[in-house]
Parts: sequence; C-alpha cells; structure tokens
Amino acid sequence: MIDFDIPADLAALRDEIRAFVNDKVVPYESDPRLTRHGPDDGLRAELVELAREAGLLTFQAPKRFGGREPSHREQAVLFEAAGWSTLGPVALNCAAPDEGNMFLLGKVANTEQVEQFLLPVIDGHQRSVFAMTEPGGAGSDPNQLNTTAEFDGTDYVINGHKWLITGAHGARTWIIMARIAPNPHGGDGPTLFLCEGDTAGIELERVMNTMDRNYVEGHGVVRLTDLRLPASAVLGEVGQALRYAQLRLAPARLTHCMRWLGAASRAQSIAIKHARERTAFGKPIGEHQGVSFMIADNEIALQQCRLAIWWACWTLDMGDRGTGRHESSMVKAYVSEELFKVADRCVQILGGIGISDETPVGMIFSDMRAFRLYDGPTEVHKYAIARQVLR
Amino acid sequence: MIDFDIPADLAALRDEIRAFVNDKVVPYESDPRLTRHGPDDGLRAELVELAREAGLLTFQAPKRFGGREPSHREQAVLFEAAGWSTLGPVALNCAAPDEGNMFLLGKVANTEQVEQFLLPVIDGHQRSVFAMTEPGGAGSDPNQLNTTAEFDGTDYVINGHKWLITGAHGARTWIIMARIAPNPHGGDGPTLFLCEGDTAGIELERVMNTMDRNYVEGHGVVRLTDLRLPASAVLGEVGQALRYAQLRLAPARLTHCMRWLGAASRAQSIAIKHARERTAFGKPIGEHQGVSFMIADNEIALQQCRLAIWWACWTLDMGDRGTGRHESSMVKAYVSEELFKVADRCVQILGGIGISDETPVGMIFSDMRAFRLYDGPTEVHKYAIARQVLR
Amino acid sequence: MIDFDIPADLAALRDEIRAFVNDKVVPYESDPRLTRHGPDDGLRAELVELAREAGLLTFQAPKRFGGREPSHREQAVLFEAAGWSTLGPVALNCAAPDEGNMFLLGKVANTEQVEQFLLPVIDGHQRSVFAMTEPGGAGSDPNQLNTTAEFDGTDYVINGHKWLITGAHGARTWIIMARIAPNPHGGDGPTLFLCEGDTAGIELERVMNTMDRNYVEGHGVVRLTDLRLPASAVLGEVGQALRYAQLRLAPARLTHCMRWLGAASRAQSIAIKHARERTAFGKPIGEHQGVSFMIADNEIALQQCRLAIWWACWTLDMGDRGTGRHESSMVKAYVSEELFKVADRCVQILGGIGISDETPVGMIFSDMRAFRLYDGPTEVHKYAIARQVLR
Amino acid sequence: MIDFDIPADLAALRDEIRAFVNDKVVPYESDPRLTRHGPDDGLRAELVELAREAGLLTFQAPKRFGGREPSHREQAVLFEAAGWSTLGPVALNCAAPDEGNMFLLGKVANTEQVEQFLLPVIDGHQRSVFAMTEPGGAGSDPNQLNTTAEFDGTDYVINGHKWLITGAHGARTWIIMARIAPNPHGGDGPTLFLCEGDTAGIELERVMNTMDRNYVEGHGVVRLTDLRLPASAVLGEVGQALRYAQLRLAPARLTHCMRWLGAASRAQSIAIKHARERTAFGKPIGEHQGVSFMIADNEIALQQCRLAIWWACWTLDMGDRGTGRHESSMVKAYVSEELFKVADRCVQILGGIGISDETPVGMIFSDMRAFRLYDGPTEVHKYAIARQVLR
Repeated sequence: MIDFDIPADLAALRDEIRAFVNDKVVPYESDPRLTRHGPDDGLRAELVELAREAGLLTFQAPKRFGGREPSHREQAVLFEAAGWSTLGPVALNCAAPDEGNMFLLGKVANTEQVEQFLLPVIDGHQRSVFAMTEPGGAGSDPNQLNTTAEFDGTDYVINGHKWLITGAHGARTWIIMARIAPNPHGGDGPTLFLCEGDTAGIELERVMNTMDRNYVEGHGVVRLTDLRLPASAVLGEVGQALRYAQLRLAPARLTHCMRWLGAASRAQSIAIKHARERTAFGKPIGEHQGVSFMIADNEIALQQCRLAIWWACWTLDMGDRGTGRHESSMVKAYVSEELFKVADRCVQILGGIGISDETPVGMIFSDMRAFRLYDGPTEVHKYAIARQVLR
Repeated sequence: MIDFDIPADLAALRDEIRAFVNDKVVPYESDPRLTRHGPDDGLRAELVELAREAGLLTFQAPKRFGGREPSHREQAVLFEAAGWSTLGPVALNCAAPDEGNMFLLGKVANTEQVEQFLLPVIDGHQRSVFAMTEPGGAGSDPNQLNTTAEFDGTDYVINGHKWLITGAHGARTWIIMARIAPNPHGGDGPTLFLCEGDTAGIELERVMNTMDRNYVEGHGVVRLTDLRLPASAVLGEVGQALRYAQLRLAPARLTHCMRWLGAASRAQSIAIKHARERTAFGKPIGEHQGVSFMIADNEIALQQCRLAIWWACWTLDMGDRGTGRHESSMVKAYVSEELFKVADRCVQILGGIGISDETPVGMIFSDMRAFRLYDGPTEVHKYAIARQVLR
Repeated sequence: MIDFDIPADLAALRDEIRAFVNDKVVPYESDPRLTRHGPDDGLRAELVELAREAGLLTFQAPKRFGGREPSHREQAVLFEAAGWSTLGPVALNCAAPDEGNMFLLGKVANTEQVEQFLLPVIDGHQRSVFAMTEPGGAGSDPNQLNTTAEFDGTDYVINGHKWLITGAHGARTWIIMARIAPNPHGGDGPTLFLCEGDTAGIELERVMNTMDRNYVEGHGVVRLTDLRLPASAVLGEVGQALRYAQLRLAPARLTHCMRWLGAASRAQSIAIKHARERTAFGKPIGEHQGVSFMIADNEIALQQCRLAIWWACWTLDMGDRGTGRHESSMVKAYVSEELFKVADRCVQILGGIGISDETPVGMIFSDMRAFRLYDGPTEVHKYAIARQVLR
Repeated sequence: MIDFDIPADLAALRDEIRAFVNDKVVPYESDPRLTRHGPDDGLRAELVELAREAGLLTFQAPKRFGGREPSHREQAVLFEAAGWSTLGPVALNCAAPDEGNMFLLGKVANTEQVEQFLLPVIDGHQRSVFAMTEPGGAGSDPNQLNTTAEFDGTDYVINGHKWLITGAHGARTWIIMARIAPNPHGGDGPTLFLCEGDTAGIELERVMNTMDRNYVEGHGVVRLTDLRLPASAVLGEVGQALRYAQLRLAPARLTHCMRWLGAASRAQSIAIKHARERTAFGKPIGEHQGVSFMIADNEIALQQCRLAIWWACWTLDMGDRGTGRHESSMVKAYVSEELFKVADRCVQILGGIGISDETPVGMIFSDMRAFRLYDGPTEVHKYAIARQVLR
C-alpha cells in the first residue's frame, strides 16, 4: 500500500551520513583545493579517508564487495543526505561518475575485470571515467559515435576524440565507448572497453573550463590515438555499448537527482536563515512576500522532487515493472528543472551574497545549471516521454 | 517503507468506479441540464440513481453510515477515478460541497443532527451548503466574518449577507457560519449553525454567473434576515467555527485535488487522442515537438500531482503527525496551479476545439481556473507555508 | 528617430473614443443581450447607432469610404482605446471579423463588389464573415482546405463544411474560401468567393458554445451544399486565396492585439481598484506583495505589449520594409500570451469575484484564452519565426 | 509621432562600434587575463588603447569633455553594439561602474574635482569605484548605510565596511558613501566623498569570488579605517547622497540593460549558428521545435528588451517627463529577467558546450544571473513599481 514511512534503521543511517557530511565535510567547502575544476585528487583523498574512518565509505556498494547494498529507495534517502555538501558524495565515494561506473562494472565486468578495475575504485584508492561523449555530439544521440576500434583478430586499435570526460585527469579505470568496425574476426558495433588511464594512446589534451565545480578533476578533452587493447579489454559483450549505457543511465540519473536534492535542500536552508536574519525596509526580508513566496515555492519543489525520486526508485526496485527508463526520464527532466529553480531562488534571496562564494549557494546554482544538460538535456527527455505516451 | 503499490482490492474498486463513470456518466456530459450554473437538481437526481443501482453511491461514507470508509490514501485513488468526468462525483455523491459537509457533520453533529441533516445527504436525497464566504471577504481571512447572531438566551437571530454559496438553490441542509455577539446568556464568537434551507429568513437573491460549471445548482448569493434558530441549532460548540472550518478544510482541499486530477487526466487523454489523429504540415501534430512537449509536460505534472496528493493523504492517515494543514496547503497550492497548466496545454493542443464545448476540455479548463481560488487562493497558501517554514 | 510621442490631435481622438466607450458603451456590459454567444444583433444595432451619433462609427475606414484612414500606428492608439470595453469595437464597427473583412475588401474588391458587399458593412447596417476554417483544420495549415468549387465555365458549385465561422448567424456579406478543382475553363486553387448570407446552399447548422463572448452572434458551423455562384463572385483573382488571407492577416492580427490590450488595461484598472479597497489580514491587499507584484507584472506587460504593437505597426506603415508578416507573428505570439497572463493575474487578485460576472474581468480572461488560438496558435507563430531566423 | 527609425549617421556609428568590437575585441575573449575576477588592468589597458586608436574611446562623454554626447536613445543603439562582447564596453570605456561614475561626476563634481577625478577616467588612464554597498545590506535599502563620517569642523573621519565594490583593486577615483553624524559644524546625513584609492585608511581586504566575470578587477571587500578627508572632498552637497545615487541610478540601470542586450544578442547568434550546424536524430537541431521554439522565444525577447530600453530612454530624453525612475525600474526588472532567460536558453541549445568556456555563452549566462541582482534586485523594483501604480 502507498506509504511514505522511513524505517528507523534507514533513518538512523541517513542521520549518520548527514551528521558526517555536516560535521566533517562541510568545513572543506572553502578549501582552496576545491578549484574551478572541482576538488582535486589531494582533497578527494583526504575526504575519502574521513569517510573510511567513519565506516561510511562506498556504503552503496553491493554486499559482496563489502557495501550495504541499499535498495534504490534506500539510496534515495541516503544519497540525499550525502548531497548536503557537494563534497559529501566525493568523500563517501558515491559521486558521479564513479558511482555509476561501479554500478555498471558490478553488473557486467568479469572476475578479472572486477579485480583490476572495480575493487580499487570501490575501496576509494582509484577513480574511474566513462568516456562516451564526443565533440560532435555522441551524448544525447549515441548514433553519432565517431570513435572507432579496428580489430585485427588479436587487438583493438582505437582512435577518436572525447570530451566532457569527467574526472579524466588522474583516473585509473577507464571505460571507453568505441564503434568496432565490421571485421572478419568477430562482432562489431558500439562497444565498451576497459583499460588503465596511463595506457599509451590516451592523451589528456586539456581540462575544460566549465561552470560546474563538483566533479573531481573536472571535465577533460581526450585524444585517443592508436590505443591498442587486447580482446580481453571488452567490457561485457561486443556491440552492446548502448544497452550497457542505458543500464547504467537509469539509476545514474536518479542518483544524480538524489545528490542534487540534498544540495538544493542545503541552499534552501541557507536562504531560510538569511531570510530570517537579514532585514530590509524595517523587517526581516522573510516577512516580505517577495521573499517568503520564494521560500514557499522552494519548500513545495523540494518535496515534489523527493516524491518523484522515491517513485522512480520504487519502479526500479519492483524489478518486474520494466527498466524504469520512462520513469527515470520523467524524473530527471522534472527534478533538474525544478532544483535549478530552487537554487535560482536561493541566489535571489541572498542577493549579492548569492552570486559570490561567501556561501555554497552560488556554486550549487552553477552546478545545477549543468545538471539540466548532463545525462540528457531536458528536451531529449521530453521527446522520449512524449513518444512513449503517444505510442 | 516507501511504497507506491495499490493493493488488488483497491485497484478493483477503482476500476469499477472508473468503468461506471466512463460508461454511465460520461454520456450525460452533453445533457442540456448541465447548464452555466452546473448540473441542475434533476440531472443530479438521475445520476445519483445510477450510482445507487451500481452500489457505489456515497462510497466514501463511514461504515456506520453504510459507506466503505476508505482511508485518505484510498480516497485519493478512488476520487481520482470518480473525477474522470466532472459529473462523476455528482453521481457518486462525493462532490463538493456535500462531501466535505458530510465529513464535518460525521465528526461534529450530535445524534439528532445526524438524523435530520446528515443521513438524507448521505443517501443522496438531499444536498447541503456550507455558508461561510461573504462579499466582504470572509473566505481567505475569516476574521472578516460579518454575519452576526444575537442570542437572547433562547434563540439566535442571524443577519448577514453570504455569497459564492455553492449549491444554495435547492439545498436542504444548511451549515451557516455567524459570529455570536457577546451576550450574558452564553459563549460568543464564530459559530456554526444547522438549519433547513426553507427556514424563514433565508433568501436566495440570485445565482451568480461564474466560469465554473461543475457544482450542482451553481453559487448563490444569500441574504439572511432575522433568521431565528433555537440553541439546539448550534453545530458542535459555540465559538469553534474556525476550528471546524479547518477540520473540514484539510481533507476537503485534498478531495478537491483528487477529483480534479481525474478531470485533468481526462483532458490529457483527449489531447493525446487529438495529437495522434489530427495532422498539420504533413504529419500528426503529436510529432511536432511544440505539441509533444506539452504532452510530456502534462504526463509529468499529472504524476507529480498524484504523488503530492498521496503524500498529504498519508500524513492525514498517520494521525499522530498533526493536522495535515501544512501539507494540505502545499499540495492544494501545487496541484491547483499544475492542473490548471495541464488543462491549459490541453486546450492549446486542441486548438479551436479546445475553447468550445465540442469536448469537456474547455469546461475543465474554466473550472480549473476557479480551483486556483477555491479553498484558499494560491497566495494565501504560500503565505501560510512560508510562515510555517520560517517560524 | 526613435520616438514615442503621440501628437495632440491623435491623443484628442483617442480620448474621445475612450470617453465614448466608457460613458456610452460600458453600461451595456450587463445587458442580457450579451449572451454566451456574444452580443446579439439587436444589441449590436443599438450600440452602432450610439457610435453613429457620436460621429465615431467605422473611424478606421479609408477616406474614400468616409473614414479617417488612420495609419497602422494611429490605429494602435485608437483601437486600444476602443477596446476598453469588449463592446467598444462592436459599437464603433472596428471589431473582428468585420474590421479585417473591410480591410481586405477595400484592397481587393471591384467596384460592384464594394457597392454590394463592403459599403453596407462600413455603414454598420450589415455584418460580414470570413469562412475559412474547417473541422479538419484549414486554419493553421491552409493546405488542408477541403471545401471544393467545381467550375463548369459559368458557375462555381461549392461544397464543404466550415466551422468556427465568427458571426455567421445573421451576416449578409460572406467571404468563402474554397479550392477550385482543376478544370478546362480557367484557373484553379484556393480562391475567395463573395456572396450574400441567404444564398441557397448556405446552411447554419448551429452556433457553437465557446468560452469567448465578444464576437457578435458567436461562432457558427456552416454546411455548404451545392452553393452555386457566378464567376463574378470571385474576390480578386482565382487561386490567390492564401495570399489574400495573408494580406488580411498581418494587420488583422495586430488590430486584435490592440483591442485586447485595451481590454487587458481595463482588467488591470479593476484589479488595481480592488487591490486598493479590499482588505485582508489587516491591510489593503495591494500592500501584500503577493498581490502587488502581480500588479507590477501587469504594468510591465501592458507597456511591453503596447511597444510591441507600435513597432509592428511602424513596420507596416513603412511600406518598403516587407509585409510585416514576421513582425506581426512575433507580436501576435507575444501579446496574446502576455495579455492572457495579465488577465489571469487580474482574476487571481479579484478572488471569487474574478471568476464571476460581477466584473468584466472573468469574461476578458476567457476571451483572452481564445485569443491565444485565433489567428494562428502561438506554436504556429513560433514555428514561423524560427524558420525565418534560422533561414 | 511614434517612430522606430534609426537615422543614417547613428546607424553608421553603431556599425563602426560593432565592427570594432567584433574585429578587435572579440579575439581577446580567450585571453588568460580575463580571469575569474574579470579582465585585469593589463588587459584593460591594452583594449583601451585599441579604442583610442579607433577614435571610439569614451564616445558617450559630454562634448565639453571631448565625447560625442549621445542622447539616451542614441546611447541605447550604441551601447548595444558595444556589448556584443563583454569586453567591448571595457575597451570603449563605457562599462560599469566607470560609465555611471563619469555620468555622476559630470553632473555634480566641481571644477577641481573634475580635473582630479573625472578627466583621468574619461581619458581611460584611471578607473573609478562607487563604494556604496555594505555587508549589512546598504544596497537595496540605503537606510541601512552603516559607514560613518565624523566631522570635526575641518576633516571628515570615515569608518566602515564596504563590499561588492566593483573594480576596487587598482582604481584611483573613489566615490564613497558615508553617513555624516550630526555635528555642530555643518550638515549631516548620507553624503558622497571623493578621494584617491591610495589614501591611507582604505584597505582592500580581498577580491570576492563571484559568478560574474566582466567587471575589471572584480568586486572588492574594503575596510575604511579612520579615513581622513578634507571638507573639499564632499561631492556635491552634504546629505544628498541618496539623491545623487538615484540620479546616477536611472541612466546607469539603462546602460546596463543596453550592454547586456548586446551580449544576449551575441549569445543568440552563437546559438543560431549551432542550431544550424549541429545535427541530432538525423537533422539540424534547429529543425527540432524543442530547439527552434527557444530560438523564437529569444528573438521575441531580444526585440522586446530593445523596445523597452528605447522607451525608457525616450522618457529620459524628454526632460519634462520626470526622472525616469519608474520607467527605468520597469525596464530594469523586465530586461534583466528576460535576458537571463535568453542566455539560459542559449546555454541549453549549446548543450555541454554551453556550460563551458568554449564559447562566451556560459560566461554571459553567469553574468546575466548577477545582473538580476545588481542595481536593485527584481523584487525591489516590483515593490517600487506597484507602489507607484497603487498610489
């Protein structure tokens, strides 16, 4: 039956995470190692050790890898708590892109691949990238994938240009999407490959300047030149890259939503405090409806986003109700647009403070802007939703 | 734990209601007795008999009065199904204002009052009014109540002017809010009174022309002139009218939301059909994103409204979580604004058809406009929400 | 040079029109002959005589037909004043569809046609219709025109089904769009025909119930059955109907905008008065920002719409700058959406009064909803604008 | 009479400015000296010399100071052209805050002050600051001014804390607002003072990190400690600071709007190019209405902002129509909100590119966010507009 109860043990873990983030992680928000390109690897390493000490590192991992294996709905509760600081998921090792990559590798990687590429990420010692997007657009429309892999029967030789590759600088576990050209030795089509970041042929041309700041080491532009990988580097099956990307995407979209819900709640809490304390025209600004209505709109929007996420997670938890692709599209489109408005209103309430780094609100706003584009821009989701409805 | 499952027996009743509305009630939507002032009493009587035959009349009543006594969450599921036609709740006897009046009387009326005023409404033979609002504004701000009751120790003599009194024409059970003046014989303050509609002193001046059309017999302007009622006419306790109004209001707001969700879903279904069938510029209009994005926005909004309602109902069902006043304010503000947008988009998709009575969509749109004002305009709710948050 | 000055003589005529509408026409707004189908012909005739007495009837006509022949910019100023009451343009004989029809006939009709079909409309004794739209959609996409005209060398025989034909009931001058089938006797393609409304073969099936109420005699559904017209009935040239429709449309869209700007200004004036006088929570509601911000938004929107209209009119007045099609699309899309929001906010400010006929605001709101669809729905305009920009 | 014509000589100067910005300034947009804190003084100096060579430096100055003294409407045309690059106004020396400061000094400064403080700014060798805002809020509500000036009959001793002081680092001409305490030697109240930036007692504590990047040397936090200034340092009259701030503000708001209109037009031009060239799902993305409708919305919004600015400038040019305070409030509120939406849509059209520094669009978006707060947040303007309307 319809229920919104959070069981006591889940609430306890949520509160533990919230307290950890608030007490241990928030103080790092003004650390200079949180740069224009996000937290650097040094800051990340320090934060990860805090989470390890607290016994909370990678809490979302499957039990067979030492995690707590929360359901999607439980993740919704816990990731929101983690997102209270944008550095929270970095510390807890449940940030993008590692979180989604761990999820995918846990589903698809074979034993050797798990050992070499997944476990070091789960234990927080290494990071991972998912190298799909290209300058020509292989994000929203994966048919435009231009990176090629030539197969000679023994090795794949990969050439291409990738960009907006989150965390490329310094990551060890690389998942690379390339299109295997038709060949007489085996299958072809879009395929995922696994390799280490220092393999010859991978060159980080530069880290892009972007308006978001919460991804470790930012977003790289990567040139792949005659990157030679053995047949064993294929992740899962040949030609299945788009299916795996979808497999990763539905839950990855939702964990994005969860973390950002936490960040938006934080922004709202800062705006509320400001609205109570700051005065203008003779009274606290929160007593002017121009401000208080924004607070009310935020209150409603945050709750609606929470409900949306919980619902989509429930569809994923009920395995027999399909892939959750339609539901997660609806929720991603809705949540990203609404949380952006929440952050925008918080900036407005804070006035000049809001557009500065005096609080994390300005940073949350800018990151939220990017969120409306990551994992599919809103327009692509609406296109997919309508097609499903009009079918 | 968080859950969105609808148990099989609830789903079965929902489907029964939906089928009843679709098969038996929808054909009456073009009946000429559905006038500018809503369905008239003749049409209502005919519809009520259909529901009685179907065994579904007043299904929401408490078990002690012969109903099925659904929880608030169960109501959410069932009233949405009832709302598929705006005449559905009329037939099933779960429409405003009777539904809220029955709820209130079930909570507060004494045995004699139940017998005289409540049971004839539950069995569908009579209708009821809740005479609170006044031309000067005693709706959003009840402190402006100007109707007075003078107490001489035996009788109350009531004078005042009421308007927007839904269903006043022809209703037998009247609940009247008046302010008892300080007097030496007993208590004073805003108080509810019960009497029959043909009592001397109640005069229906006229029925107002309004843009909504789903309330039986429309909205009346009522003059109360020396309306003399015995002390036994007091409903509940003297001076408690505002508390009772609140008691009635939280669930009444939500049932409004549920019924309108059903109506908006209907509008969307008509828009979808049109988008599939009507062509422009060489393809179905649903293949133009200008249309399909509206369909997607509606799909998201309808689901979000459903989640909002379910959540507020859950807080009411969990009796220990307070009155649900804050939650129902959030949900009423959100749902009324969003469903209006849904209806507006459906009108737009239908083009010229949308602003006509060729489908019920135009009527739903106009009714939805009024819904943003009934039970507290959105601005009053935001004011209350913000005060709660900023406390 | 950029200038926003209104010369004294134009201002004087504007004030004269405004005073006429306010003093003579506004009192008719509660006349029972203003029905669900708009003002009836009796009310219209009475209003027209008032304008004739005032020397203001059909002031926009060309000088050769006895009018004042204002430029498009002058019309913008004058029609806004006329629109202060939705009955103002009816009285002054500058309402749709007659105003646009007179414009078109003045441009295209030959001497005999002027005599028979135009002059009686200009002098206010007859009304006219423009029978283009069809149930299948020949409004936004004229390629869908299904009404056919078979030509036997002597007569055209027209068959088809038209709907949303404004003012069909009682109109004498009919402009009918039909597609001439290829024939050995002459040209073919979409063509305009002129005939009188009582010609055999024209049957008014019914008047549609629509949410707008300002068009004389409402919108009809018309069956054309073997309507036989002589070759001389062709208006302008064979095959040029779409060009003429465009010729009519650009200015007709703008005069629509002007009249509605007047009506929206009226709604705002009523909302302002209410915001000053009505109190809630201890002060005039206009001192709550929830209300006052709506007043400010309206103030901005009304001025922006005025500027938009003036600008598009200027492009039309500068004949060498093209047809004004792009500009009038931009302005129609913008103005209709913005004025609808203005009316919506006025309804909200008025509360329960706003959704009733106690003031004209509710009626203006409903009419404005239709305005977003007439003369091309917003989506069709955006489509055209973008194509122009992206060319 | 209403007119939108741009005379040939004005158009020629506009085109000259546009060509200068496009050819000479745009290439500097990727210069590393354009930092998080805006262009540094070195970059500025280089750009200023380019404008000097082109004969366009400080073109807006009064003729008596060697400028062209354009009217407000002429400025509207020219500043929009200058804003095509956010570095354009920097080069041309018509950027905030110098432009507004020069305007104010030109109106109020005496001959000695002009010589010492204004002329070096006009000739581009020095920069200026307007030190009004304080951490406690003396921006929107100047009654909260906490910086004090004690007058001993000879000197003023100023103490206070200022922040968001644009261009503080390196500026030579300082205009400081402080409240003169009641004293026996002369007047008191909020007063403007002029001094040089290296005067003892002025300490730049830090430059703030903000999301905007187009103000030279960013926004400083300034501590004023026993800043001793002679009586001759008063700018204009004692106690008149708020009046002068208003005098500066109405035109300064408008020049802000003009420059940002240019920047938003640039963003739109980049988005249009992308929409034409980038393909997805088999065709240019500009052929998907999800994108093309954003292009159309932008086209409309840019034109509406232009009209709004022209209109407010015209009211300023007509000196007898008041201060333009109401009109400039309306226009600032409207233009800042609309141009932000334009920039936001351009980001969305560009996808991942839009949130990066690959084009200036992302930077324009972030700057535009701040624009909704500078010179009065939208809410303060709406408050003022409504008060004027409801008076």
